[in-house]
Amino acid sequence: MGGVTRHGKLDLTFLPPTSPDPASGQTGKSELEEGIAFTPRFDADGLIACVTKDASDGQILMLAYMNAEALRLTLETGVAHYWSRSRQTLWRKGDTSGQVQKVTEIWTDCDQDALLLTVEPGGDGGACHTGRRSCFYRKVGLGGDTAKLVFD
Amino acid sequence: MGGVTRHGKLDLTFLPPTSPDPASGQTGKSELEEGIAFTPRFDADGLIACVTKDASDGQILMLAYMNAEALRLTLETGVAHYWSRSRQTLWRKGDTSGQVQKVTEIWTDCDQDALLLTVEPGGDGGACHTGRRSCFYRKVGLGGDTAKLVFD
Repeated sequence: MGGVTRHGKLDLTFLPPTSPDPASGQTGKSELEEGIAFTPRFDADGLIACVTKDASDGQILMLAYMNAEALRLTLETGVAHYWSRSRQTLWRKGDTSGQVQKVTEIWTDCDQDALLLTVEPGGDGGACHTGRRSCFYRKVGLGGDTAKLVFD
Repeated sequence: MGGVTRHGKLDLTFLPPTSPDPASGQTGKSELEEGIAFTPRFDADGLIACVTKDASDGQILMLAYMNAEALRLTLETGVAHYWSRSRQTLWRKGDTSGQVQKVTEIWTDCDQDALLLTVEPGGDGGACHTGRRSCFYRKVGLGGDTAKLVFD
């Protein structure tokens, strides 16, 4: 496995926010989709969505966002950093909870506007601030004309 | 299992975009986190991020977005609908590819600003327009001072 741990500055090419999407429309395969250059595309707010799963069993733990700095720090330190949209701050996961996420793999999707992290969570092994392992602990249940949440 | 298939209009409460996040800061547990009301929170663009996995083995297939209409249609029809940010259109997954996604479960996260769908993909069983099963087919590899993508 080896993980992505490294130290020192990386020479990363981050495409600017709102860069065009060559994968849209009928342009077919492209460097973005079939190339080996990692050129993550951030949205108008400078963010990229990131889903994080546990390396041990593939359980999906959380969905959060990174800005370029959070992604750079994640790559450089091997520990997951995110951007908190609600607090508008860079956020090293686990700084207060102990749930530090050691990153073992980072995947990107076809048009490079999403990330998938595989991590080994520290602390109690969870990721959710409510104390649960995964942030996804409620399922939408349909009854009658309403949608209600059912706890896992 | 039963899935979420149903027909007819649902009485859904969708919080407006940019609604405040009671889960942020030190407010502790809240109705948003511990309640049974499904009140998905959309961002300033009216979108909510959605990660989709295969019901058969948990493989993460894609990460996309829904607006309120896409979510409503998904709940009402039991088939995944998304909002295409690049094309700015509502998108019933599989309409052209045959990769229609029958939704078996919908989960939401602690602060209800993300969704996790479990689906049974139709057609060839894949989800990616490049022909691959998952959109996440390249891993970020670090070598020297650069990050390169490695195909799965």
